[in-house]
Amino acid sequence: MNQGLQFDDTGRLRHLLTIEGLSRQTILEILDTAESFISVGQREIKKIPLLRGKTVVNLFFEFSTRTRTTFEIAAKRLSADVINLSVGTSSTAKGETLLDTIRNLEAMHTDLFVVRHGESGAAHMIARHVPPHVRIINAGDGRHAHPTQGLLDMFTIRRHKGDFGKLKVAIVGDILHSRVARSQIHALKALGVDELRVVAPKTLLPTAVEKLGVIPCSRMEDGLDGVDVVMMLRLQRERMQGAHIPSEHEYFNLFGLTPVKLALAAKDAIVLHPGPMNRGLEIDSAVADGPQSVILPQVTYGIAVRMAVMALIMGGSPGRREETHPVAASRARAVVTTRKRK
Amino acid sequence: MNQGLQFDDTGRLRHLLTIEGLSRQTILEILDTAESFISVGQREIKKIPLLRGKTVVNLFFEFSTRTRTTFEIAAKRLSADVINLSVGTSSTAKGETLLDTIRNLEAMHTDLFVVRHGESGAAHMIARHVPPHVRIINAGDGRHAHPTQGLLDMFTIRRHKGDFGKLKVAIVGDILHSRVARSQIHALKALGVDELRVVAPKTLLPTAVEKLGVIPCSRMEDGLDGVDVVMMLRLQRERMQGAHIPSEHEYFNLFGLTPVKLALAAKDAIVLHPGPMNRGLEIDSAVADGPQSVILPQVTYGIAVRMAVMALIMGGSPGRREETHPVAASRARAVVTTRKRK
Amino acid sequence: MNQGLQFDDTGRLRHLLTIEGLSRQTILEILDTAESFISVGQREIKKIPLLRGKTVVNLFFEFSTRTRTTFEIAAKRLSADVINLSVGTSSTAKGETLLDTIRNLEAMHTDLFVVRHGESGAAHMIARHVPPHVRIINAGDGRHAHPTQGLLDMFTIRRHKGDFGKLKVAIVGDILHSRVARSQIHALKALGVDELRVVAPKTLLPTAVEKLGVIPCSRMEDGLDGVDVVMMLRLQRERMQGAHIPSEHEYFNLFGLTPVKLALAAKDAIVLHPGPMNRGLEIDSAVADGPQSVILPQVTYGIAVRMAVMALIMGGSPGRREETHPVAASRARAVVTTRKRK
Repeated sequence: MNQGLQFDDTGRLRHLLTIEGLSRQTILEILDTAESFISVGQREIKKIPLLRGKTVVNLFFEFSTRTRTTFEIAAKRLSADVINLSVGTSSTAKGETLLDTIRNLEAMHTDLFVVRHGESGAAHMIARHVPPHVRIINAGDGRHAHPTQGLLDMFTIRRHKGDFGKLKVAIVGDILHSRVARSQIHALKALGVDELRVVAPKTLLPTAVEKLGVIPCSRMEDGLDGVDVVMMLRLQRERMQGAHIPSEHEYFNLFGLTPVKLALAAKDAIVLHPGPMNRGLEIDSAVADGPQSVILPQVTYGIAVRMAVMALIMGGSPGRREETHPVAASRARAVVTTRKRK
Repeated sequence: MNQGLQFDDTGRLRHLLTIEGLSRQTILEILDTAESFISVGQREIKKIPLLRGKTVVNLFFEFSTRTRTTFEIAAKRLSADVINLSVGTSSTAKGETLLDTIRNLEAMHTDLFVVRHGESGAAHMIARHVPPHVRIINAGDGRHAHPTQGLLDMFTIRRHKGDFGKLKVAIVGDILHSRVARSQIHALKALGVDELRVVAPKTLLPTAVEKLGVIPCSRMEDGLDGVDVVMMLRLQRERMQGAHIPSEHEYFNLFGLTPVKLALAAKDAIVLHPGPMNRGLEIDSAVADGPQSVILPQVTYGIAVRMAVMALIMGGSPGRREETHPVAASRARAVVTTRKRK
Repeated sequence: MNQGLQFDDTGRLRHLLTIEGLSRQTILEILDTAESFISVGQREIKKIPLLRGKTVVNLFFEFSTRTRTTFEIAAKRLSADVINLSVGTSSTAKGETLLDTIRNLEAMHTDLFVVRHGESGAAHMIARHVPPHVRIINAGDGRHAHPTQGLLDMFTIRRHKGDFGKLKVAIVGDILHSRVARSQIHALKALGVDELRVVAPKTLLPTAVEKLGVIPCSRMEDGLDGVDVVMMLRLQRERMQGAHIPSEHEYFNLFGLTPVKLALAAKDAIVLHPGPMNRGLEIDSAVADGPQSVILPQVTYGIAVRMAVMALIMGGSPGRREETHPVAASRARAVVTTRKRK
């Protein structure tokens, strides 16, 4: 898909559709901006007026209360008005096309669509059709991308492990069907991680996955050996019904992250999971709730990262907002400058 | 139904239930106020504090994401708090009567109900039972009325074609079952349109429709000839199953608005549609997306018209708000005065 | 269940889980604070900034539009951001545990959970697991408790009848299955009501109910004789199918509150009902809409009581909010002081 679509003519981020094609510098700018929003969640009054008077539409064609909630909280903390639309049950049911739905919403002068859709490329397709003042954030499209998840994972790794150039990372689970894995791989490669392994049964590994610059492993012994970061994926139980996995029991035995398997990694390795977890399937509770787990911090950081993405793409608006928006953007950056991560 | 119900003792608009019985002057006051709100949607901060601290309840007994969204956006841009209730799935399911639901909501000191209901007269019934400080907007009741749709259509026509007295207008489609058509007819007659035709297969025309002051036509050739405005209606596909329409294909051939049929109208005729559109059934995409279509502007104007209606009826409140509300109302009118439509 | 859970180390109310164990003083503090919020619902701008920047999550595992709406309105009038989650249809459907859902929401730095759950003890269980800065309000758990309902009923009785020590009160209906009855009994006993009767068919009375300090009656003649307050319960129609009640008709004849039966009570007795009402089953419309009914005032007071509970438990926060929250709390109390109930 066309990554140029994400940038405006001046090279500023206009939409966030995929991490593929984002430069190291752009990713770091997002992470730095997110650092500045971490403190907002800890304040007495968790609200800043950056998006006051803006309308954010959560446009969910696929059901996800958790992801919708994180974007709703992020937008409200930026003082935006939020409209939640579950479009599976909306006008498209009346036979209206997706594009008619989008055009109608933008005619209402909404500013930002957070789009979740079951089909790969849906957010790109929408981004190709909106006018310049409308922004799109891809909140997950089919098997393609889930960029804010990938970014919050990077934020988590940087906070807990520091310099990417020195890290060995393993992504474990259903690589084949996972939009999260795709976004993580693009982000980690852009940030120059030392070594990146993908660990899965062969039936859950894409063919020629090496082309992405990753090392495929079909055994946890190979995959986790000495890594600094273990990124678990959620296993869709539906996969059990296909030929992909023999049984939940066997999957847990071979690929479930237990304390014993985690001991293969570096002593101070951290464990991530995008949630919701299948405890006892891809991850053991002793690990999920253990001292190496950063799974709940991921959720906290996720709010800050989504606030950062919203602030940055809304701040780079061309056209009629020209006079005012650069102020908002520089305000966002000023916060970053004064509260740099140590 | 009793139109007097819409006005308070001083003759000010208290509820908006139907366009039937509204004077030309009242309709123009709403359209003028809406003009003043058009600019709000174009501002950097799309919010004005007119309804701050007021509670607007979207009370939808019939499902409509799009209409609910337009009222939610309008109310939030006026700084109201908005509560969305889909009452099909609510207390009425527990056996509570409609009036008990209403009485409970008004006991919570809510200020404005936006009511959508499948039965004609539901909004009137509610308006008859609420105390003086509660306001009702009918967002569509059965086959009866959809006044904000009718008003936004008038707004659209005035913006694009000017003086109603010089216009020939055709309403095309399922006149018989359409609350939108009823509201459009009342508005156009009140505004003194030069000529008003309704175009439909005979099975979809009310008997004695001429009494409303319209010219019935059962062929597009007669209906569209030389008109300045073509107002298409949405065709409920359910009608196909009854004896009303032979087939979708035949309906499109006879009454679907194609470029060829549109050529029967005046060269600079405009095309309206309340949405959601059935492309290829009542309207061809070449027309819907063509240069004469004002379908998306209708959506934009719809927000401003709903803001105007809310501001006007909330500003005319009697009783305990006496001291303050006239201020809000005069504020609303002041905006109008300074930004008169040219 | 452990009532100590409701208080922090300094003895301040931290969660509201049940009325059981609350002192007379604590209950009166809540009622007094609620008095101060009554006026907010009558203001032109029904909003105060007490919870600005706070995030309130309505976490409803059991469906209840009405209760959710009262908490949503109360929180918004306190200027909080509100997130509505119907968890029956959420992540728990994806196999996530209840505690994972809670931990995720608190990781998003949400401040207050309003929890409705079909299982007794659910709110307690959650309260045992949240960190110090998170607050819980039980909005109904199984057959156990519905404390804000109990409190608003006390508020209503105090407003209309005054001193509890002089009152005879009857609770009528399905005592056995009712969380509302349990909360009412605990509150009325704590407030030192003169006499408390529970009136129901024997199949709907708990065994050994006398231990709660109430007088069981199986005939309305005994139960209502000379009482000052009649508190009706909602009868779940589902009970009909079991062996609990012979028929709706017979139940109404024996226990339905008609004007004739109400005449057994004191002349100026008041009638309460938590809603939604089954008119013609547990209560006759002539009573529900009659001069002795305070059923709609209950709804109005319910908003003020919920605002009061939210303000008080959010004001007593320990830890990182130490510096600021006592201010908010003293602000809440100051309002009380200046607007004491006469």
